[in-house]
Amino acid sequence: MVYSFKDGDGKNKQLLGGKGAGLSEMTQIGLPVPPGFVITTEVCIEYNEKQKKLPNGLIDEVKKQLVKVENETGKKFGDFGNPLLVSVRSGAAMSMPGMMDTILNLGLNSKTVQGLIEQTNDERFAYDCYRRFIQLFSKIAMNAKEEPFDEVFEKYKEKYNAKFDTDLTADALKEIVTEFKQICKKQIGEDFPEDPFDQLQRAIEAVFDSWMGKRAIEYRRINKITPEVANGTAVNVQTMVFGNMGSGSGTGVAFTRDPGIGKNEFYGEYLPNAQGEDVVAGIRTPKPISEMRKDFPKIYEELRNIRKILEQHYKEVQDFEFTIEKGKLYMLQTRNGKMTTTAAIKTSVDMFNEGLLSKRESLLRIIPENLEQILHKRIDPNTSNKPVAGGIAASPGAASGKAILDADTAAEMGNKGEKIILVREETKPDDVHGFAVSQGILTSRGGKTSHAAVVARGMGKPCVTGSEDVKIDMKNRTFKLKENIIKEGELITIDGSHGDIYIGKVSTVDPILPSELQQLLSWADDERKIGIRANVDTPEGAKKARDFGAEGIGLCRTERMFNAADRLPIVQKMIMAETKEERSKYLSQLMPLQKNDFIEILKAMNGLPVTIRLLDPPLHEFLPSLEQLHSEIDRIQKRGDSTEDKEKILEIVRNLTEVNPMLGHRGVRLGITDPEIYEMQVRAIIEACVELKKQKYDIKPEIMIPQVSSVSELALVRDRVEKIANEIMEESGVKINYSFGTMIEVVRSCLTANKIANIVEFFSFGTNDLTQGTFSFSREDAENKFLPRYLELKIMKENPFEVLDFEGVGRLMDIAVKEGRSVRPKLKVGICGEHGGEPNSVKFCYRIGLDYVSCSVYRVPVARLAAAQEVIIG
Amino acid sequence: MVYSFKDGDGKNKQLLGGKGAGLSEMTQIGLPVPPGFVITTEVCIEYNEKQKKLPNGLIDEVKKQLVKVENETGKKFGDFGNPLLVSVRSGAAMSMPGMMDTILNLGLNSKTVQGLIEQTNDERFAYDCYRRFIQLFSKIAMNAKEEPFDEVFEKYKEKYNAKFDTDLTADALKEIVTEFKQICKKQIGEDFPEDPFDQLQRAIEAVFDSWMGKRAIEYRRINKITPEVANGTAVNVQTMVFGNMGSGSGTGVAFTRDPGIGKNEFYGEYLPNAQGEDVVAGIRTPKPISEMRKDFPKIYEELRNIRKILEQHYKEVQDFEFTIEKGKLYMLQTRNGKMTTTAAIKTSVDMFNEGLLSKRESLLRIIPENLEQILHKRIDPNTSNKPVAGGIAASPGAASGKAILDADTAAEMGNKGEKIILVREETKPDDVHGFAVSQGILTSRGGKTSHAAVVARGMGKPCVTGSEDVKIDMKNRTFKLKENIIKEGELITIDGSHGDIYIGKVSTVDPILPSELQQLLSWADDERKIGIRANVDTPEGAKKARDFGAEGIGLCRTERMFNAADRLPIVQKMIMAETKEERSKYLSQLMPLQKNDFIEILKAMNGLPVTIRLLDPPLHEFLPSLEQLHSEIDRIQKRGDSTEDKEKILEIVRNLTEVNPMLGHRGVRLGITDPEIYEMQVRAIIEACVELKKQKYDIKPEIMIPQVSSVSELALVRDRVEKIANEIMEESGVKINYSFGTMIEVVRSCLTANKIANIVEFFSFGTNDLTQGTFSFSREDAENKFLPRYLELKIMKENPFEVLDFEGVGRLMDIAVKEGRSVRPKLKVGICGEHGGEPNSVKFCYRIGLDYVSCSVYRVPVARLAAAQEVIIG
Repeated sequence: MVYSFKDGDGKNKQLLGGKGAGLSEMTQIGLPVPPGFVITTEVCIEYNEKQKKLPNGLIDEVKKQLVKVENETGKKFGDFGNPLLVSVRSGAAMSMPGMMDTILNLGLNSKTVQGLIEQTNDERFAYDCYRRFIQLFSKIAMNAKEEPFDEVFEKYKEKYNAKFDTDLTADALKEIVTEFKQICKKQIGEDFPEDPFDQLQRAIEAVFDSWMGKRAIEYRRINKITPEVANGTAVNVQTMVFGNMGSGSGTGVAFTRDPGIGKNEFYGEYLPNAQGEDVVAGIRTPKPISEMRKDFPKIYEELRNIRKILEQHYKEVQDFEFTIEKGKLYMLQTRNGKMTTTAAIKTSVDMFNEGLLSKRESLLRIIPENLEQILHKRIDPNTSNKPVAGGIAASPGAASGKAILDADTAAEMGNKGEKIILVREETKPDDVHGFAVSQGILTSRGGKTSHAAVVARGMGKPCVTGSEDVKIDMKNRTFKLKENIIKEGELITIDGSHGDIYIGKVSTVDPILPSELQQLLSWADDERKIGIRANVDTPEGAKKARDFGAEGIGLCRTERMFNAADRLPIVQKMIMAETKEERSKYLSQLMPLQKNDFIEILKAMNGLPVTIRLLDPPLHEFLPSLEQLHSEIDRIQKRGDSTEDKEKILEIVRNLTEVNPMLGHRGVRLGITDPEIYEMQVRAIIEACVELKKQKYDIKPEIMIPQVSSVSELALVRDRVEKIANEIMEESGVKINYSFGTMIEVVRSCLTANKIANIVEFFSFGTNDLTQGTFSFSREDAENKFLPRYLELKIMKENPFEVLDFEGVGRLMDIAVKEGRSVRPKLKVGICGEHGGEPNSVKFCYRIGLDYVSCSVYRVPVARLAAAQEVIIG
Repeated sequence: MVYSFKDGDGKNKQLLGGKGAGLSEMTQIGLPVPPGFVITTEVCIEYNEKQKKLPNGLIDEVKKQLVKVENETGKKFGDFGNPLLVSVRSGAAMSMPGMMDTILNLGLNSKTVQGLIEQTNDERFAYDCYRRFIQLFSKIAMNAKEEPFDEVFEKYKEKYNAKFDTDLTADALKEIVTEFKQICKKQIGEDFPEDPFDQLQRAIEAVFDSWMGKRAIEYRRINKITPEVANGTAVNVQTMVFGNMGSGSGTGVAFTRDPGIGKNEFYGEYLPNAQGEDVVAGIRTPKPISEMRKDFPKIYEELRNIRKILEQHYKEVQDFEFTIEKGKLYMLQTRNGKMTTTAAIKTSVDMFNEGLLSKRESLLRIIPENLEQILHKRIDPNTSNKPVAGGIAASPGAASGKAILDADTAAEMGNKGEKIILVREETKPDDVHGFAVSQGILTSRGGKTSHAAVVARGMGKPCVTGSEDVKIDMKNRTFKLKENIIKEGELITIDGSHGDIYIGKVSTVDPILPSELQQLLSWADDERKIGIRANVDTPEGAKKARDFGAEGIGLCRTERMFNAADRLPIVQKMIMAETKEERSKYLSQLMPLQKNDFIEILKAMNGLPVTIRLLDPPLHEFLPSLEQLHSEIDRIQKRGDSTEDKEKILEIVRNLTEVNPMLGHRGVRLGITDPEIYEMQVRAIIEACVELKKQKYDIKPEIMIPQVSSVSELALVRDRVEKIANEIMEESGVKINYSFGTMIEVVRSCLTANKIANIVEFFSFGTNDLTQGTFSFSREDAENKFLPRYLELKIMKENPFEVLDFEGVGRLMDIAVKEGRSVRPKLKVGICGEHGGEPNSVKFCYRIGLDYVSCSVYRVPVARLAAAQEVIIG
């Protein structure tokens, strides 16, 4: 139940808490730690489970440990002449700063205070300690209210005309002590405890109580600290040392390296003649640690040495606290330093170079998720602007621009070179031409996987979604941002990394990529055994993907090309065509445009595979919505103009409207019923390939069919694809090696993978749709209506659209991989859904044997690292 | 390749075709069949695969068989004195009436025609045969055009002033024969073949050719005759007999029993002095078979005897053809008689009573699907009215009434006792109060599993859906029915068994249930090993369900109760409530109503289990649609009234609107986020049970949760349910044994069934939703947009919303059953989706071990029979 710092297992934070483990470890590697001991977290759990009763025998063990401390320090607990004073501090496996209680100077009473005076020769100091102890102990261990103490203290300051606390004399403090004891008696109905052992027991109980305090429980809930992460707090009982015993004393906090940029440089600050609490309270401004060279030259050298010892021992950057008591250094805490991602990258690579870490250890030091953030612009950390509203951090990065309320206006202004932020209730594919010219996107509806979020991430643009603070008024072309009315065209700034919205232009800073990043990622590439591709629809995207290390394009969405401003009108006419001939006419206008897209993308990816997915969304997504049309017709009617054209569109949109478009007439279903569209696309792909092959490019096209639920659908489409491809190859005399594959995004395709694999060369999991089918959750509706509540109620641990649901969706994927390969052992299998860039999902994909993951460009580094880590951990 | 009728295996229709098998069988059981032989269907396949070349050796075999026929008949093929004439007829395993070719009188040429004259002593008859043969052969075997022959024939009729064909003399016919031969020569460029063997070979080839004729292929496509059902046609070569050789001759068609009502009575008709073709052509009216007693007393007795022999042999009602040549009876065909369902039921039960069939054989005689039709009213078969338009036959039965265009008006008029048909574009739950008072429902959108269809079937009302002929004009309150404009309130009639729509009132007839049906179904109950329940939401439905043999209610949809006219306004207020208190107020108004529903239903099902499903649909389904509100607001604005109220509803509806409502905020998800609704329902159920138990009713309530995707959802809801139930039980002192279970209608619930089964007592598959999730097909969108094309292209054999998809959905069900029972061996598992009444699906459910199926009331008999058949077939 109790471990001396000399005996405790410093690796076992779960048992000893972070602080206790650090103190034990430091003691055992010979650093100067004030003697003390730890009561384990298990005692805390038992205490709280057993109606707040300390386990039998605990106090005996504590007493035994106290004797050891007495022997080491030569002081004696409760002794009138040379009293041992202790601190009683909490310390869980995870740091929960300020959430649990600490009591200092325990052991003081009306007798031992005299001993403290003898020890220190400072009556004022001793009574100052005593009055602090009484106030703290009364509050924490006796549940007294704090105000009466503060009032009395202020009264005496007035009485003695003291400006600062330090102006109060020993006699004044003596009077205060007397009155504090009276307050205690009055409030609690009992005398302030004189017996130090009584004090100690009550302090231990108070710390254990604080683990179940309201604040602590709330903190754990918010920070997702589950019992697996930290269960109960330990209690550290440690000899008091005083940094506030004159100019030869002091206290400080330091990092073994710079936690902001990772530079290998001693980093920290200190305060002469002060206690740790004073640094935290911020009353006095601490000095940079380098100044200790002058003030405490010997101690400074000692600390530099300790810094080295700590890093050699822990092999991680340490964040530690120390106190100097009358020229003697004491270490009070050490823990792994929290760093920026940039610093984590630099220090990990540096530590490899210094021989402290292996490459594999370096790789494990970085949290893959964090890599994405540093690739984007962010809000200047020195800005004084404050966000006025918030939403969901849907795509990282920060951007400013004029708020524009529809995609057409956005396109118009953007093309003139204006910087704009597109602000919409939600977005649809026919808004995408507005995305391309915007700096960022802000929506009032939708979650992290809404259309706006997915498209923005694909384009690497900042995006804040689902902001309930945004209420758009299209009539007046304004929107409410909380209580502010913003007119269209006013400047706003969004921070998609944190979901913040600012009024006006807020300065942003460019990402500074540490030079060590490339190094680290190349080590990751050496380790990982799963390929990494990017989801890309533009030549620029393709170039960026290569820069970030993508080994191909795993998903090129051809519909994105339909949305470009020069094409959407043709696409719309094609959809509304009344005859086959008319439709063909518009498709043949689209063909050369799409062909050119493919030429540019395939060129950019020369030598690497490019998976081109044929049209996926339902046709009505390219047309305005019913409500939009109704309101337009309304406007036109009020003008007195003819609404005939719009009525015609309305009729078509009404016919195309679906009850559940996600499960409707789209993907291969549309490809089958309206074959001309796929035919045009296949023609464009193969003709593009012919042209490039003639120019000696090394192209690796892969044609992929979406939304397949049965092998019969695929068989039919494959025949049509082959027919066109063969025609073009025969005409041109150029042979193109393209491969033919399918998205696996429908539950049934997983369940019949052994048939499907007979006629395709590759599978690519579309896990967004697969998750929707598996849960019967519509992504958008779920994230808007019930998923947040589900996460709150812990019905789910994670949003399954962010982290793969291994149990359901993952099981289907596993079935598909195994049964697909049972008929085609060399079947290539990848994933191109949003999960392809989520570290846990990447790891899962590796475990079930996928050949590659494909993700949005900015997540490629994330995926590279996550894939390496999974191999290392095994 | 060739079988004599004496040797062919009469059981092997696949090889010999239906006709050939029947002729062989009859020959072998001693019935008088004109001698002949069959060329097998395999030859046909080979012929058509091998570029239309008859296999080597075939003609030799044919010649050998001809010799046998010559020996039996004493005639000789091609003989000038006593020539053998044959018919050459097609005959596939499945009857394809009129689709393939037949040639009669083959063997005639300028020499043998003299022999025929000698045989018959009738020159006119012989030349009549000859001219018929030339025309038929030229057309079929030589691809000559028919018109020139008809023109010549008419010319001679004019020339000789002949009113009827029979007025032409032998000489005239001779001239015609000569001219026919010239036509042949002129058209084809070769002489009409004189050689009978040449004639025979060409006739055989012509029959084989006709199998691949356009008409035949189209017929097979429409009637879904796949190669497994019938592959190729056989050719029957048979000695000609003539029913047209004077008054001692004749021809007829008969059934061994009445195929309309099943009475055990010789049934048929005949024509004296005629050939079979004449009966078919309908030029002369045949006489009832009973009149043969007078005209052909001996033959009549012989036929009565044959009738008995055929039934004893085939143990099925036979449909046979015969010819009498100069007082001698010949059998030309027999096959199983096509009967009405009523007749099939009666004859099967009768045949058991007569010792012809076992009970099991009787049960296998009835096609389960057909049972549903006979339970409903139908259009009077004697009506002269013709349907003016059509749609999908969505719920069987026929009904007339005033066409009414919205549910409110329907409710109003229906409550006054008017008979109405509700006519809508499509229906939603808030139309259901209109269903209850309607005779039938007609919609212009949606398929067999649309909302309208499902609800109508549940209520046993006729329904025609998805009629593209119906165009509703709400402004003028009229609708177009093809080109007719129907004003609201005009009478129409719908036939939901056939999808027909009539203008005006068309007389209908009540179903006449054969008394043998109960007998048959009780045999089925003895055989089947799977329980049958009904999906029912009303006390009347419950009574009917018991009548039809349901052993419980497998699905009581509580939302139906929300839709009643007296409740919907309260439900809407409850949804739109702005505070928890307000919502509670409306819920407590609903509580006693719902409680009373449960009391009535549980009472009606006394002693049997009732599965009550808590609220399933999303809340917006109870409110008007966005478009509806827009148009209402428009109307109110034009009136100049305030639209404030409607605008408020609009706002709420807009907030509740979902992108994919099928996958949205509904079922358990709504139950979790808005717990008050389920709480009210559970309270209503348990209080109803307490009341009934006090009255000594034997109640077996089962509470079922919809849309579950994970065990955590269920665990949370179960706790809430138990809390309320325990409260009520404690208060009342009455213990209720209710069981707690879940719908399995989400893919993920199948995949995690081993966890879910830990906390529920039963599973009930909701295979509509499960099919949607598995295919990623939205039922309504799929049936409106692409499923019809899929079926046409044979991408699917069946609509998976009608017949369970065993491969995908079935596999998930199998996983769920196995893994659920792995943790709870006694887990009760049923199905309550639409598939529960579809025979193939019922059979599948039995095979994977379900305890029961539950279906709409009118399908209960279907399910009882299907379940028995599966046990029998094994």
